[in-house]
Amino acid sequence: MTTHYFSPTHYHITLGSHTPVLEIADGNTVITTTIDANGYDAQNQRVSADPNPQTGPFFIQGAEPGDTLVVHLERITPNREYGWSRASVASNVVDPSFVPQLPPRDKAEWRVDGEMETATLVSPKTKLGEFVVPIKPMLGCFGVAPYDGQAISTATSAQHGGNMDYNGFVAGVTVYFPVFVSGALFYLGDGHAAQGDGEMVGTGIEISMDVQFTVRVLKNKKINQVRGENDEYIFTVGNARPLDQATQHATTEMLRWLQDDYGLDAVSASILFGQCVEYNLGNMFDPAYTMVCKIPKRYLKGFTRQIQSPISSL
Amino acid sequence: MTTHYFSPTHYHITLGSHTPVLEIADGNTVITTTIDANGYDAQNQRVSADPNPQTGPFFIQGAEPGDTLVVHLERITPNREYGWSRASVASNVVDPSFVPQLPPRDKAEWRVDGEMETATLVSPKTKLGEFVVPIKPMLGCFGVAPYDGQAISTATSAQHGGNMDYNGFVAGVTVYFPVFVSGALFYLGDGHAAQGDGEMVGTGIEISMDVQFTVRVLKNKKINQVRGENDEYIFTVGNARPLDQATQHATTEMLRWLQDDYGLDAVSASILFGQCVEYNLGNMFDPAYTMVCKIPKRYLKGFTRQIQSPISSL
Amino acid sequence: MTTHYFSPTHYHITLGSHTPVLEIADGNTVITTTIDANGYDAQNQRVSADPNPQTGPFFIQGAEPGDTLVVHLERITPNREYGWSRASVASNVVDPSFVPQLPPRDKAEWRVDGEMETATLVSPKTKLGEFVVPIKPMLGCFGVAPYDGQAISTATSAQHGGNMDYNGFVAGVTVYFPVFVSGALFYLGDGHAAQGDGEMVGTGIEISMDVQFTVRVLKNKKINQVRGENDEYIFTVGNARPLDQATQHATTEMLRWLQDDYGLDAVSASILFGQCVEYNLGNMFDPAYTMVCKIPKRYLKGFTRQIQSPISSL
Amino acid sequence: MTTHYFSPTHYHITLGSHTPVLEIADGNTVITTTIDANGYDAQNQRVSADPNPQTGPFFIQGAEPGDTLVVHLERITPNREYGWSRASVASNVVDPSFVPQLPPRDKAEWRVDGEMETATLVSPKTKLGEFVVPIKPMLGCFGVAPYDGQAISTATSAQHGGNMDYNGFVAGVTVYFPVFVSGALFYLGDGHAAQGDGEMVGTGIEISMDVQFTVRVLKNKKINQVRGENDEYIFTVGNARPLDQATQHATTEMLRWLQDDYGLDAVSASILFGQCVEYNLGNMFDPAYTMVCKIPKRYLKGFTRQIQSPISSL
Repeated sequence: MTTHYFSPTHYHITLGSHTPVLEIADGNTVITTTIDANGYDAQNQRVSADPNPQTGPFFIQGAEPGDTLVVHLERITPNREYGWSRASVASNVVDPSFVPQLPPRDKAEWRVDGEMETATLVSPKTKLGEFVVPIKPMLGCFGVAPYDGQAISTATSAQHGGNMDYNGFVAGVTVYFPVFVSGALFYLGDGHAAQGDGEMVGTGIEISMDVQFTVRVLKNKKINQVRGENDEYIFTVGNARPLDQATQHATTEMLRWLQDDYGLDAVSASILFGQCVEYNLGNMFDPAYTMVCKIPKRYLKGFTRQIQSPISSL
Repeated sequence: MTTHYFSPTHYHITLGSHTPVLEIADGNTVITTTIDANGYDAQNQRVSADPNPQTGPFFIQGAEPGDTLVVHLERITPNREYGWSRASVASNVVDPSFVPQLPPRDKAEWRVDGEMETATLVSPKTKLGEFVVPIKPMLGCFGVAPYDGQAISTATSAQHGGNMDYNGFVAGVTVYFPVFVSGALFYLGDGHAAQGDGEMVGTGIEISMDVQFTVRVLKNKKINQVRGENDEYIFTVGNARPLDQATQHATTEMLRWLQDDYGLDAVSASILFGQCVEYNLGNMFDPAYTMVCKIPKRYLKGFTRQIQSPISSL
Repeated sequence: MTTHYFSPTHYHITLGSHTPVLEIADGNTVITTTIDANGYDAQNQRVSADPNPQTGPFFIQGAEPGDTLVVHLERITPNREYGWSRASVASNVVDPSFVPQLPPRDKAEWRVDGEMETATLVSPKTKLGEFVVPIKPMLGCFGVAPYDGQAISTATSAQHGGNMDYNGFVAGVTVYFPVFVSGALFYLGDGHAAQGDGEMVGTGIEISMDVQFTVRVLKNKKINQVRGENDEYIFTVGNARPLDQATQHATTEMLRWLQDDYGLDAVSASILFGQCVEYNLGNMFDPAYTMVCKIPKRYLKGFTRQIQSPISSL
Repeated sequence: MTTHYFSPTHYHITLGSHTPVLEIADGNTVITTTIDANGYDAQNQRVSADPNPQTGPFFIQGAEPGDTLVVHLERITPNREYGWSRASVASNVVDPSFVPQLPPRDKAEWRVDGEMETATLVSPKTKLGEFVVPIKPMLGCFGVAPYDGQAISTATSAQHGGNMDYNGFVAGVTVYFPVFVSGALFYLGDGHAAQGDGEMVGTGIEISMDVQFTVRVLKNKKINQVRGENDEYIFTVGNARPLDQATQHATTEMLRWLQDDYGLDAVSASILFGQCVEYNLGNMFDPAYTMVCKIPKRYLKGFTRQIQSPISSL
């Protein structure tokens, strides 16, 4: 297996059909870096405009519209100590009459200790005292070039991925994207050292990252929304506003997955859904919200999965 | 401590200012039964109209408008073998264009084994084969009489509780309700042997239950939405449609809780929120949807809680 | 035709199965009064709790569940000079980040001149100077007892009507309500001398009214949502939150109406809809929002209407 | 005043920073053509991919980010006889449980008579018989290049305009767009001979058009959403999903307009709003819905408008 070491020199704030920075083959691994949501790198130097500047795009050979791009996230590690977040809950996630009681949208600063796997609040001084949270590094914004030649802001998300801000996108997860253009054009950025459900303050602990990932292409496999899996779950991702529609997208995509790949009929899939489904709130801050629909793999053991994750076969 | 054994003879399909079936004191325990969502009892005999007929109301001495009623759920145990659910995902939780692909709203039947703590699908025959899920018995619909003399259908939910269909309402949980009328008038029913997140088929595994609970009254403690806690979390419950508003209600109520009882200011509460909050989807089927906002107790250890759960002091 | 003169002595703040104040026959006319949203009468004396205290209920002989109650609004006339409104746009109708820029929820006072058919702003003094608007008297909240023995707050609305706050409910309009209980139990109140679309400040110009209406019963005619008609339009009313669902309710009910009573098939009704439908925003302030779907009668002239408005036959 | 006659040779299905087809000066008039939503021209020949292929972009000299582009729509005239629409109400605008009752998404065909100003249904044969509607030609999709180098599909809309599908965008209307890139880059297309409110079948009567418009630039005038005016109204346009947010955008923008340009304070603007505002439903079909907030000009006569429409001064 080939591994590419890629050191980015410029970044993108749209996911679109930009000139690839690297062409890689099906099965290749990339080791690279991402900068933080405001465009600051590992040395905390500003090297790009915001929001959520992306490393890439990577052109994946053989990926064509109608295929599925598989991205296995192998490593997401903060590569500096300094992290930041917002220090107020966002105005759109509280009752409208409560908005005047929210604090200003100031910054909080965190010291991230990669070895201890913790983030410690540095400022402001709050009633939380010495406040330490475990880190769980994730990618907030990543995806592929959208359809119809669009270039979509990294502030938002849709079927092509983008700014989903789901705290389940951690190392060890395999993500599936619909391919809309030749080469898929994969982008990544917006690392969070940690983030609560829903990204209710509008950020995680924003930080630059070292990232390693491996790509595969599923030929002639069409999916409608971003999908993923980890050791315990298969999951689908609905990106839309409001939450109702995000949930509808995720639910519909999971029903399709269960029927197309696991050979369940609509009734079987419904019964599985009724008792076993779980949902996670990705974000409720970005222009498109994100809801994640999960089925535990332990309920799927009895079924032949037509299309295995090709990552395991590497 | 007094324990009342109460055997219901009639049921209510609204939560309102109905004649109490029993008057109990602050600190009392009640051992009673509930019937299933369609009005069938432990012998699977129909004894009430639907939906979600309620046992009660229980008049709690000393509870007055502006107080909080505390209900500790001590036991929720299926008292028959027969459970049922719907066998199709509901039309409102999928993309509108996908609705024609949903199966009919038929019933599925389950055999619930209380000792093994499992539910086994009996019919229809599906591709799931021998399909067994662990049970996690919960109350789908319970609450108090609402404000302004209203009588609100047990099909829906609001600040008074009602048909929240949240699978976290299991034995061991303490629930807090705002009191709107003298005596609070507590009702309970709609047991589910198990239910996935969101109640996406419109039911859990519906069944009759043996229930034990203990009540307390927090005098002059006003809350705005249903709250709860278990060993790991404190949580707030937003009941509204759409999900966005349900989430706003739950989030606002948690911010109030953190500020009023834990002495956090708005910035401290926000920072805690940003990195530590979790959300659960209660239901996305009933007229009002339910979202639950949770803060892990491990992050709250350092703070003096003004008002302890009074259950522990019994 | 019998005309009843009814002078109310008490009022209700829920629509429910309360004791009728008067029993009237199919075809009867009632001349009565309503008090304002805060419970102040023609002498500006407080005679009831709020919100939106209702005159009634009127028991209509022969109306049974599954029938339709027809109410022809013949006269809605302010019976005092003093009107009031709120002086700030509500927090839920602006972007969340704009909420802190809204003024306090103070009262504005108006002098209503019934003869000139105008309302003049009395206080506060604003940059609007001498500000006069034409009046267009309407009922904000009226309806029938809901199903399942519910008693629903006059703050909100649903299939039974209630606090719809639609400025098209003026004299001359015929309104259709589904009947859920024997006698239908018709209520009315919450007069507005005028109101912009959407009730964006949370009130119209609130005032007490003299009202005259005539009732009819359509036997065995089941409708799902409130309907209405005036000289130019037939219309349907969706009461729900969010606006999307209110619009879905109104649209679905109009499709049913066109197909059931006008003999259009689904394609014909769709084509009519595509080019001829109009929508009005009733309110976007109350717990349930209101959207109104209208079809101009001029497009319906060629079709036999199975069930004529029975008002014209009186 | 210079008038440019521009005959398009290619079209765009995104609004983005594409190469201008023509550079024009502030005050210039353009006479050009647009093709229909599916890419068919005046000869009903397919000349572009869909959806909603756009003529343009026109580079307006002197327009810079932070300015406002003013477009006066002077003429929108169908340039062929053949129009088409969909023959079924869309699945997202009805109650989810009603979706299975909708007819297939077939095409309807219309004969548009520009002289008589009518459209006559040609097929399918329906119960509507000889069905003729007056035409009211409008542009469904037009706007400027969005911010951050985005290229956004002509299927949707946002602050830059796009596929708003509002039937009030007819000849005689002046439209204001925020400028995000040098030259603004104005696009237009997607003509409808007629369309009901909300575009509930997902189309108007789609047709190619002759269009004439004149542009002006308001230097250093920043607006947040699309605005417009006609003889009777000033209006603002909210493009977002769900309708609630579209309405919030439009309402907020109108409050800003009244305060910034008419010198009203927040209370005065609120009182005007409360009694005088009107709303129109643009579309409830596209990925972003459109709501329009209108204030009648008759209520604004007493106020000095800081920035007059510059169209009148040509």
